[in-house]
Amino acid sequence: MNDNFVLKGIVCYSRSQTEIAVFPDSYVVCEKGISRGVYRTLPEGYQTLPLTDYGDKLILPGLVDLHTHAPQYPFRGTGMDLELVEWLQSRAFPEEARYSNLDYARTAYRQFVERLTRSATTRACVFATRHREATELLMDLLEDSGLTTFVGKVNMDRNAPEDLQEESAQVSARETRLWLEETEGRYRRTRPILTPRFIPSCTEELLESLGDIRQERGLPVQSHLSENPEEIRWVKELCPQAEFYGDAYDRRGLFGRDPSGRPFPTIMAHCVWSSPEEVVRMKENGVFVAHCPASNTNLSSGIAPVRTYLDAGLRVGLGSDVAGGHTESLFRAMTDAVQVSKLYWRLVDQTVKPITFAEAFYLATKGGGAFFGNVGSLEEGYEFDAIVLDDSSLSHPQALTAPQRLEQAAYLSLDLLGLHAKYVAGRQLF
Amino acid sequence: MNDNFVLKGIVCYSRSQTEIAVFPDSYVVCEKGISRGVYRTLPEGYQTLPLTDYGDKLILPGLVDLHTHAPQYPFRGTGMDLELVEWLQSRAFPEEARYSNLDYARTAYRQFVERLTRSATTRACVFATRHREATELLMDLLEDSGLTTFVGKVNMDRNAPEDLQEESAQVSARETRLWLEETEGRYRRTRPILTPRFIPSCTEELLESLGDIRQERGLPVQSHLSENPEEIRWVKELCPQAEFYGDAYDRRGLFGRDPSGRPFPTIMAHCVWSSPEEVVRMKENGVFVAHCPASNTNLSSGIAPVRTYLDAGLRVGLGSDVAGGHTESLFRAMTDAVQVSKLYWRLVDQTVKPITFAEAFYLATKGGGAFFGNVGSLEEGYEFDAIVLDDSSLSHPQALTAPQRLEQAAYLSLDLLGLHAKYVAGRQLF
Repeated sequence: MNDNFVLKGIVCYSRSQTEIAVFPDSYVVCEKGISRGVYRTLPEGYQTLPLTDYGDKLILPGLVDLHTHAPQYPFRGTGMDLELVEWLQSRAFPEEARYSNLDYARTAYRQFVERLTRSATTRACVFATRHREATELLMDLLEDSGLTTFVGKVNMDRNAPEDLQEESAQVSARETRLWLEETEGRYRRTRPILTPRFIPSCTEELLESLGDIRQERGLPVQSHLSENPEEIRWVKELCPQAEFYGDAYDRRGLFGRDPSGRPFPTIMAHCVWSSPEEVVRMKENGVFVAHCPASNTNLSSGIAPVRTYLDAGLRVGLGSDVAGGHTESLFRAMTDAVQVSKLYWRLVDQTVKPITFAEAFYLATKGGGAFFGNVGSLEEGYEFDAIVLDDSSLSHPQALTAPQRLEQAAYLSLDLLGLHAKYVAGRQLF
Repeated sequence: MNDNFVLKGIVCYSRSQTEIAVFPDSYVVCEKGISRGVYRTLPEGYQTLPLTDYGDKLILPGLVDLHTHAPQYPFRGTGMDLELVEWLQSRAFPEEARYSNLDYARTAYRQFVERLTRSATTRACVFATRHREATELLMDLLEDSGLTTFVGKVNMDRNAPEDLQEESAQVSARETRLWLEETEGRYRRTRPILTPRFIPSCTEELLESLGDIRQERGLPVQSHLSENPEEIRWVKELCPQAEFYGDAYDRRGLFGRDPSGRPFPTIMAHCVWSSPEEVVRMKENGVFVAHCPASNTNLSSGIAPVRTYLDAGLRVGLGSDVAGGHTESLFRAMTDAVQVSKLYWRLVDQTVKPITFAEAFYLATKGGGAFFGNVGSLEEGYEFDAIVLDDSSLSHPQALTAPQRLEQAAYLSLDLLGLHAKYVAGRQLF
């Protein structure tokens, strides 16, 4: 493994939220896992580095999946005629209950990690299940894969089937501490993230304990927020003292700011129906939105007004949300983001302009990448995550420009077919 | 080529609009291009026929694409940030103008036909361009492919760039007659269909001539209808005497019924914004709706209320609408149909229930198949169109049922990856 090297090809990255920069026939330099920039002519100092010439292929930043459920991967694309709460009870929860069995977990997680490794995703924030051992197994497998991930042992002590629910808030908290102790110092690329499933799954007592654990260990947080109107009503019933859904997390120090006002990284998935007050709080607290368009459609949740969130200055990335979403393809998530934004414009509010393809590409790279630090671009100083796309399986009677090739590859989900090479933090995975 | 044979596998077809029948480990018999039914035990009379055992693979009816534009295939999945009228002017029309060049047309149409042949589509209704020679070339290629298709030389004598528009209504009508004469009796599987592009592209004089040609030759018709609010306003300006958009066709005998009231087969693509009066007329005239969910989303047109149309007794099938739609995959069209119907339910009208997967499968098989006669099923008496699906590239830790496998294959567009064999009217294509 040599992490000083040069790649040559057609290099593309987001110059800004609205513009994809394209450098045909150019060089991108990696030193110690960090990009040293893109060049039309290779500077002298880099000419002795090993060079891989990818010719006419596209070299893109690796893509970032801000929200996915590893244990739901086995049933992706099935049972899609259901709405959120019904789907949780009849599909997601029964499948997740199986991960008490480590043999099952090993088989399932191996398949998930194998697929994720072959995909365009280089970084991901992953929900496991409430099971400590299976979560550690998933972390071991992800570490070995070379991907960089946050992984969460899920917390859930109410409103779930008996075989999945944790026995009590105390048990849930204890298992979480044990998980954190057992995995501490064990990985280079795999980090724990505190993962209360969502408010309906967590008692007040559990949320309070999680707030304490978060504070003690300086952990990031991921959860679900304002996905579905029925769910939001339920949260209001369960937690009447909260001003709005997100406030139910914030009151316990699980929403981007600790009680002393210190910020910490937080991802909230969905945010389809966030109220103006919730949006303001997310902005104040620096909370990331994981926009999951496929899942929001599949579960009839609605369309998240991503343009509105971007205009409000929120930090937004994309989530595949397997298995509410049916595929791990972030190319698909990009085009889904464009598509649903057009329907939002047409059917809901014609003052909210659709997301362009360039903007969707930004969300999948720099947008979500910011959660991981300097990630999501090939510009100088970014961690060197890159994918090399071979679209030669698509024949054309005419020439396409590089931006057209990129857009087409995204619409046709070529990331699941045509990926030629992949690098994470300067390390080549294939 | 032996068109008496037996296939064995897991046989699925739509028993009704709402139910997929599944026959594990069963036989389906083909005699002279027609299905003789599905059997758990092979009747004695068929035991001498050659048998192909597809084991655990799924045997499905071939899928029917009621609306696609062959010349737009080269730029599918590009330029998707535009709305209908702008997209026509800047993408579709310039590309179509190239088909005056037969070398270009040959290269492009070969690629289209090759891809369509490898897809799950066994029957299609295809727009060519206004060019007679290139249209005949496309028909030659489709005939050789073994697919069964309707193909239309497009008519357009106004509101298009000079290099694409036909010089006059007379020229357009003359070229159409010539095209029909030149191709008469030339094909077994490839039939002409009258194809006025849409009202904004056709003068009253041209529509009148096309009505005459249709009547003389008893031709079917395909066109576009009520796709986009801006387009509908434009039609109202162009044709103020029409009661509604569809009436502009009907007045000229191009909308499912001739002046004497005799029915003929007609497909209208999109129908996103059809008024109640238009729906009533379509019902009276037996007009087929080609539902094109991907295109309606990509071009920000909206969501066609398919549930409403089905409840009103309209005949509905699916269209890929390449290249407003970005893919020829009808598996994708099925899941798009489900997905947009959920957003319609959530965002537009909660009295209009989403389409289920079983219903989308019905639309892609029997729904559109009815345009071709007894097509779209493996039940006895149907023309024998079948596809054999190999989903073994998807590994699972658990067993999936056949309906789950079918749904998953659709959500993951496995028709573009995993098709193992294909039969059209009893002839095996691969």
